[in-house]
Amino acid sequence: MRDFLPDDVRRREHVIAIVRTVYERYGFEPLETPAVENLETLTGKYGDEGNQLIFKILKRGEHEASGQADLALRYDLTVPLARVVAHHHAKLPRLFKRYQIQPVWRADRPARGRFREFYQCDVDSLGSTSPVVEAEVCAAVSDVLMELGFRDFVMRLNHRQLLTAILETAGVEEARHGDALVALDKLDKIGRDGVAKELTERGVAGSETLLDLFTSRNGIAEFLAAHPAGQAALENLRQILALVEGTSAGSRMRLDPSLARGLSYYTGAIMEVNVPDLAGSLGGGGRYDNLVGMFSGQSIPACGFSLGLERIIVVMTERGMFPADLPMNPADVMVASFDQAGMTHAMALAAALRRSSLRVFVYPEPDKIGKQLKYAESRGIPCVAMLGENEIARREVTLKHLASRAQETHPQDRAGDAVKELLARG
Amino acid sequence: MRDFLPDDVRRREHVIAIVRTVYERYGFEPLETPAVENLETLTGKYGDEGNQLIFKILKRGEHEASGQADLALRYDLTVPLARVVAHHHAKLPRLFKRYQIQPVWRADRPARGRFREFYQCDVDSLGSTSPVVEAEVCAAVSDVLMELGFRDFVMRLNHRQLLTAILETAGVEEARHGDALVALDKLDKIGRDGVAKELTERGVAGSETLLDLFTSRNGIAEFLAAHPAGQAALENLRQILALVEGTSAGSRMRLDPSLARGLSYYTGAIMEVNVPDLAGSLGGGGRYDNLVGMFSGQSIPACGFSLGLERIIVVMTERGMFPADLPMNPADVMVASFDQAGMTHAMALAAALRRSSLRVFVYPEPDKIGKQLKYAESRGIPCVAMLGENEIARREVTLKHLASRAQETHPQDRAGDAVKELLARG
Repeated sequence: MRDFLPDDVRRREHVIAIVRTVYERYGFEPLETPAVENLETLTGKYGDEGNQLIFKILKRGEHEASGQADLALRYDLTVPLARVVAHHHAKLPRLFKRYQIQPVWRADRPARGRFREFYQCDVDSLGSTSPVVEAEVCAAVSDVLMELGFRDFVMRLNHRQLLTAILETAGVEEARHGDALVALDKLDKIGRDGVAKELTERGVAGSETLLDLFTSRNGIAEFLAAHPAGQAALENLRQILALVEGTSAGSRMRLDPSLARGLSYYTGAIMEVNVPDLAGSLGGGGRYDNLVGMFSGQSIPACGFSLGLERIIVVMTERGMFPADLPMNPADVMVASFDQAGMTHAMALAAALRRSSLRVFVYPEPDKIGKQLKYAESRGIPCVAMLGENEIARREVTLKHLASRAQETHPQDRAGDAVKELLARG
Repeated sequence: MRDFLPDDVRRREHVIAIVRTVYERYGFEPLETPAVENLETLTGKYGDEGNQLIFKILKRGEHEASGQADLALRYDLTVPLARVVAHHHAKLPRLFKRYQIQPVWRADRPARGRFREFYQCDVDSLGSTSPVVEAEVCAAVSDVLMELGFRDFVMRLNHRQLLTAILETAGVEEARHGDALVALDKLDKIGRDGVAKELTERGVAGSETLLDLFTSRNGIAEFLAAHPAGQAALENLRQILALVEGTSAGSRMRLDPSLARGLSYYTGAIMEVNVPDLAGSLGGGGRYDNLVGMFSGQSIPACGFSLGLERIIVVMTERGMFPADLPMNPADVMVASFDQAGMTHAMALAAALRRSSLRVFVYPEPDKIGKQLKYAESRGIPCVAMLGENEIARREVTLKHLASRAQETHPQDRAGDAVKELLARG
C-alpha cells in the first residue's frame, strides 16, 4: 500500500475527474459504501481464490482475545452494491444506475499496476435485462478511455451462458465448469499449454476440443447448433454489438470466446478491456442477475463494469499521457515575510488575495528575502508579494514576477487584480 | 458505518469541494495515505482511550490462525502524515503544507454526528515554529466554515505549555498531568462537578484551584507571573490572535484556558471550533513538534487542524444550510425507448448528446411511453427525447419539456443545442 504525495494525488484527481464526468454523462449517480463490511457479506462471493485474499478485522474489546474476525475490508464494489440495493430497495428508483469510485483491498502479491489497496471506478445498472444496459456500460468505459487519451484499447466481449453451452457441448461435467472457467480465463496470461496443464490438473475432460475452439475462435455457432441457450447467448452478444455501433465503443469491441472472467457471480455477458502494453486488463465487468437476490428474496437484474484506477495511471505514466499543463505548484503567489510587526499586514494581504480566489502561500519565517525567493522558485510559485515598511506606510504592495524578474508596485486594494494580470503574462 | 445514497454523496461532495478549494487557497497541497497502517505505527500515539478504539486487521494466510493482528485501520490523519514526512523526507519541501480529506475508523459507540467510519478534513503545516502557521491554519478553517454558511462558530484557543504551567503552579505532580488534562478537556461536556469528580478519582491534587482558574478565565497571567514557560505560551497565543486580526478568524477566536484536547501528541497551541447546537466540536487541532521525530531521528515542527465532515453535515442538514439548487437528478435529458430496431438510433442520439456534454439517461426497456415519461418525471429529469419511426426516417428528434408539457421537433444534428435551449427555459 502506498502514500500519494501531492503530484501523485493531482494526477489521480485528473483521471478521477474525467471518469466521474463521463459516468455522469451516462446518467450514473454517485454511491459510496463503507470500507468495512460484515465478513459474512463477502465470504462465498468471490470464489475460493478470492476468499483467501480478504483482509479480516479482529473483534473489538473483550472479544479481541478470541482471535476471531467479524468484519472485513471491501474486496470489490459490486458485492457492496448488491447489499445496498437489497437493503435500501424502497428508497432506490426501479431503474438504478450508479457509479462508485472507492478503494478496495486484496491481500494479493503486489505486481506492476497491482497493489493491495487500489481504487475501482465502477458503473452498474440495475433493474433491466435489456442489452441496452451492456451497450451503455461498454460505451461509458470506452468514452472514459478516449477522454483520457487512449486510442489502442480493445474491449473483449463474451457470455457466461455461451461458455456454459460450449462446456456442456464439449462434454465437461457440470461440477467442473467453475474449474474450467478459472483455467480458461488465464489463456492470455499463461498461454494454451499452461491452460491445458491446469485443465488437466483440475480434472476437466475434453480440454483439447475446448482449446481448439477458444484459440481458433471459429465455428462456435455451428458447434452450438443444437444448444438453444447457447444460441440465445450469441444473439444477445450480437444485439450488444449492434447497439454500440453509434458510440465510441463501436470500433473497439471484439467477440472473444476465450474470455471467462474469474469472479463467480456473472450470469450473462462479460467484458474486459485491454491495452497492448499491460499484461492484465484495465478493467472488466458483466451481467450478474442473481447477486442482489443473495441478499434479499427479490432477484434484481444487474450489469456493470469496473475500471482499475492504478492500472490506468501506470500506463498513462509510462506513456507520458498526462497533460503538460496539469498544475503542480502549491500557490499562485507567495507573500514574503519580513518581521513580526509586518506579518499582521502580510496576513491581511493574503486574506484579501484569497478573497480574489487566488491560491496564496504565506512564507512563515522572517528569513532573508533571497532565501524566500529561492523557496518560491523551487516550488514553481510564479509571483511573490512583498510588504516592506515603505509599502505598509503607503498601503502598497510590491509584486515580483519570478520568470521575468520584473518588479512592480501597486495599491494594496487592487493587489488581487494586479497578481492576476501578472500571472496572465505567463 | 453507513451507505451514502446518491443525494447523500452529492451533499458530501458539495462540502468537500468547498473545503478543498479553501484549503488550496491557503497553499495546502493534497496528500493521501493508505487506509491500512502497520499496527505499531498507531499504538501509543493516541493515549490509552484511543488505543482501545483502533480496528486491528488479522494476519493473512498461514498466520491467520494465530489470531494476531499486524495491521490496523487509520485512526486519524495526523500520525500517518508524521510517518509520511519522516519516510519521504528527501522528496518533500522544507516547508510542507498539506491537506488530506479521507476516512478514519474508530471502534467508538456511535452518537449524533459520531460514526465508526468518518471523514476528516485536515490541514497541516510542517517545518516552521512561527505563529503564522497557527494563524493560517485557524484562518483556513474559519474561511471553510464561512463559505459553508456558518455564522455562529467560535474558535477556542489554548496552549499545552500554558496548561502545564498552570498545573505545575497549582502543585499537580507531573505524573498526573496527563490525567488532569483528560479530565479538564471534558469541562464543556460533563461540567465543573463532573470534572471535579474525575480529577479526584484520577488522584489529581489541587482540583479546586484549577477549576476556579479555568471557569473564571481570569488572573492567569498573574497566577503564572513566576513561570517563564507559561508567560512564553501566553505571548505565543497573543501573537496568534494578533496575526488572525485581518482574517475571517479574527472575530471568531477566544482564549479558553479550559480547552485541553484529548490527544497526547500536542506540544503548543491547541484549538477547537464549536457551534452552539452541537455538543462536541466541529474540529480541532494544534501544534505537535515531536510527533515526526517519533518516526525518524529528526524532529520537525508541525501544526494542524482537523475538521469533521460528518459533524459539519449533521449541523448543515438540521439547519437546512444546503443550497436549494444543488443538482440532485441523474440526467438533463432521457432518451425514450421504442423497439429493438429503434434502440440503435437512440444509442447514437445519446452519444451525440453526450458529446455536447449533456447528461443523458437512456431508458433501456421498450415500455409504454406514458410509463417512460412518468419515470423521467419521478427522477426529476426535465426533458425527454423521442425517436419514433417518423423521426428516424426524417433524421429528426422530438423533445418533450416535462414541466411545460411543450413538445417540439428538431433535426438530429442540432439535438444538443435544442436540449440546452429547452433546459435554459427552466
